[in-house]
Amino acid sequence: MSSDEGPRAAGAPAPEAGAWLGEVRWNADGLVAAIAQDAATQRVLTLAWMNREALARTEATREAHYWSRSRGRLWRKGESSGHVQRVQEIRLDCDGDAIVLQVEQVGGIACHTGHARCFYRRLERGRWIETDPVQKDPREIYGHG
Amino acid sequence: MSSDEGPRAAGAPAPEAGAWLGEVRWNADGLVAAIAQDAATQRVLTLAWMNREALARTEATREAHYWSRSRGRLWRKGESSGHVQRVQEIRLDCDGDAIVLQVEQVGGIACHTGHARCFYRRLERGRWIETDPVQKDPREIYGHG
Repeated sequence: MSSDEGPRAAGAPAPEAGAWLGEVRWNADGLVAAIAQDAATQRVLTLAWMNREALARTEATREAHYWSRSRGRLWRKGESSGHVQRVQEIRLDCDGDAIVLQVEQVGGIACHTGHARCFYRRLERGRWIETDPVQKDPREIYGHG
Repeated sequence: MSSDEGPRAAGAPAPEAGAWLGEVRWNADGLVAAIAQDAATQRVLTLAWMNREALARTEATREAHYWSRSRGRLWRKGESSGHVQRVQEIRLDCDGDAIVLQVEQVGGIACHTGHARCFYRRLERGRWIETDPVQKDPREIYGHG
């Protein structure tokens, strides 16, 4: 993404078309929480964060873009792994500070750990139990294997 | 909830039983994001925040408790409206900073606006369109009608 940074980069909508972005209640860091839900299985896959540009690009390209708080940069989901999220629907909540995406999860793997979803642990009698198997070794996914 | 505040109140688990709470990665404000998903319809109903006590009580009582950032207090979902969330499952994500609850939404209304879910608006051609009807007038729900 380093070659096309900036608010007026290809794929971003024209300013006059972006009034809907103004209805989002961005937090103090300029971010909104974005839940991705698998359109086929209805499982919640990921919770990530978007800044204004990430949401604009998500809408324009129909592929989920997020703001990586740890890396401090825009991030197209799947840019390294190929596990793109194709966006079928974008919803906003009552007070405008949370988004739900309905997505087609390419490759069937949403989590960097190689699990199908990030929520692979369930609380059982006071312990977090891993209920879902790893689909693919992360070293294979990211080409470090 | 004003009569039973405090970390050792009734319903909170004994400290030795709470090791799982230490695996949650609380943010700088001591909170974790909590998604509630309808166990029957699989719709995402709400995104709210929990502090340590809210999550401990949610586990102990099997009713969703949150931390209200606007009111600055613990909040049992449905304490005013009766629209309690009965918790069937608690999941944690890969990096420990997000929760998914599977809930039975009592009354079928999760949102303070009287909608079944908070995510009642969908983006359509650059506009947020209300796709879901109001189930009940909020003045009726909260007894101000």
